[in-house]
Amino acid sequence: MGTMNLQCPMPKFDFEVINLGHGSGGLLTNKLLEAGVFGVLKNPLLDTHHDGAVLQLTGPTAFSTDSFVVSPVFFPGGNIGELAVNGTVNDLAMCGAAAQYLSLAFILEEGLPMTEFWEILTSVKTAAERAGVQVVTGDTKVVERGKGDKIFINTTGIGAIHPKADISMSRVKTGDRIIVSGPIATHGIAIMSVREGLEFETTLQSDTANLNHTILQLIDVFGPAIHLLRDPTRGGLATVLNEIARDARCGVEIHQRQIPMLEEVGGACELLGLDPLYVANEGVFIAVVEEQFAGAVLDRLRKLDFGAEAQIVGEIVEAHPRQVVLHSEIGGRRVVNMLAGEQLPRIC
Amino acid sequence: MGTMNLQCPMPKFDFEVINLGHGSGGLLTNKLLEAGVFGVLKNPLLDTHHDGAVLQLTGPTAFSTDSFVVSPVFFPGGNIGELAVNGTVNDLAMCGAAAQYLSLAFILEEGLPMTEFWEILTSVKTAAERAGVQVVTGDTKVVERGKGDKIFINTTGIGAIHPKADISMSRVKTGDRIIVSGPIATHGIAIMSVREGLEFETTLQSDTANLNHTILQLIDVFGPAIHLLRDPTRGGLATVLNEIARDARCGVEIHQRQIPMLEEVGGACELLGLDPLYVANEGVFIAVVEEQFAGAVLDRLRKLDFGAEAQIVGEIVEAHPRQVVLHSEIGGRRVVNMLAGEQLPRIC
Repeated sequence: MGTMNLQCPMPKFDFEVINLGHGSGGLLTNKLLEAGVFGVLKNPLLDTHHDGAVLQLTGPTAFSTDSFVVSPVFFPGGNIGELAVNGTVNDLAMCGAAAQYLSLAFILEEGLPMTEFWEILTSVKTAAERAGVQVVTGDTKVVERGKGDKIFINTTGIGAIHPKADISMSRVKTGDRIIVSGPIATHGIAIMSVREGLEFETTLQSDTANLNHTILQLIDVFGPAIHLLRDPTRGGLATVLNEIARDARCGVEIHQRQIPMLEEVGGACELLGLDPLYVANEGVFIAVVEEQFAGAVLDRLRKLDFGAEAQIVGEIVEAHPRQVVLHSEIGGRRVVNMLAGEQLPRIC
Repeated sequence: MGTMNLQCPMPKFDFEVINLGHGSGGLLTNKLLEAGVFGVLKNPLLDTHHDGAVLQLTGPTAFSTDSFVVSPVFFPGGNIGELAVNGTVNDLAMCGAAAQYLSLAFILEEGLPMTEFWEILTSVKTAAERAGVQVVTGDTKVVERGKGDKIFINTTGIGAIHPKADISMSRVKTGDRIIVSGPIATHGIAIMSVREGLEFETTLQSDTANLNHTILQLIDVFGPAIHLLRDPTRGGLATVLNEIARDARCGVEIHQRQIPMLEEVGGACELLGLDPLYVANEGVFIAVVEEQFAGAVLDRLRKLDFGAEAQIVGEIVEAHPRQVVLHSEIGGRRVVNMLAGEQLPRIC
């Protein structure tokens, strides 16, 4: 379960586990919120006593939602709380936006230990601080034992779009380079390693991270030279590249040798019979960049958080529209399709 | 399951139930979204191919989230789809805001029949149209059989606050009148009647409704004379009044005789041993109104949608701060506390 956050010791609750009363909207819900959620996440905008928060917004704003159902809830390198914050912060970043405000909604299963809920809450707090986003409104529901799975979290985010950002599928064009910001498949394999009881020489940790500061620094410097940003979470790199090929009506070529991946992740994929191109990522993004700026973007990205191992992995081509073609390390070529079934349910 | 929405016949899917692949982020997720969700909810802003929507917002904006876990998913008078839209639209309305944009996130249980999912989706569409709100971004996750319960929905909403609105707990003051917009406890009893297999002479229907148009018309006319708005959902009227007494540090007095309630709801409450003051509402709101305008607000409200049976049920008093006192029909007085346990789990 990791170590308890020392800055936020758990107050004394007169209950050890979540029960249905905590979702009643009545006294127990109020107790849980006052001592728990609001105690941890305190900020001036988190309106503890109304149905919503009041914000001042101007200009183009990104709006994005994600529900998180990851299993197990605690995994090497993180837990569902920080995943839920980072996930939505990153979705906003992919729109070229700086996350400003988050909503936070819990669906708790009766019987969830308060210690676990507390650890998740403090992770939400830490992740939100790191990303510079405020949790301003929320909701808590409780379902009976066996009708949920410990905890599901929805976060929905709002963020101002950077004035220099001009990111859209329509800007993707032949010659653009495709940058991958870091080693792929780490998150999926970290989760799988717990589920399957795999042991590695070192503990493989999820790459969950907030990418917003990195992204916004790139946009600040390179502005419209960045044509598209995507985070290859569920479905992995292969699925996102296929979506680009389909929606931008272009061909995509990638070079296996160039794709960054940790050695132990590659080994685990072989062991488990998984293609890393389809395995979920959390702290990785793809940037489709104007050809003549690709080198400069790469150099800059390598100096930023989470970008040290970035690579140019391929390019947008006119040939084979709507297809992603992989050049393998041994010189072969193969078409890479979108993820067809489901390899790793509940990875995020 | 009610009748199928004729305006949105279900397309032919090559699967009859939801499976884990629909949450993979890959091909099956894309199929479900393209033919299903985007097909039904189509609008110019619903960006089918990015991680978030881009909005233009200005001025004070309300932001509110709710997850819906109601059981059963289909109930007399509605289903979880319209409940999820109306619930967040109403939370925004209680902030004095006109709902503009919604996010929509599903947690589906493996095995959910597509016909049911389709009916819920079309209800989302209808409810959104009625409320004048656009669903602009979303998410779909799938959990294994037995790790969820058919379908949970999160909606998060954004809406511009009416320029004449001045709604906050700090505006509640001695002498203010408390208006209840319609018969209480209907939603909770409609749900309970299905769960308990109760039969009424007429079918009791949930009062789920979008209150935004009604509220905004009142604000348009009466502006700052409306001090506070709340919707007494979970925890019922008693809990919301207690929150007001606590947070505004005032006393609340209500008169049982004045509280609107359907006769059959009263009967069912007696039969089930439930106090209607604690039973959940969906299409009802409470307005705390400046004394000298209360009569005029009531008259106007009675002419608006969902307000025909509105009543002034009580007032804010200086006596007994933080307490809600009920004057009973037979002349007694009793303190009404916040809901202590949980009478009706998963009512919304």
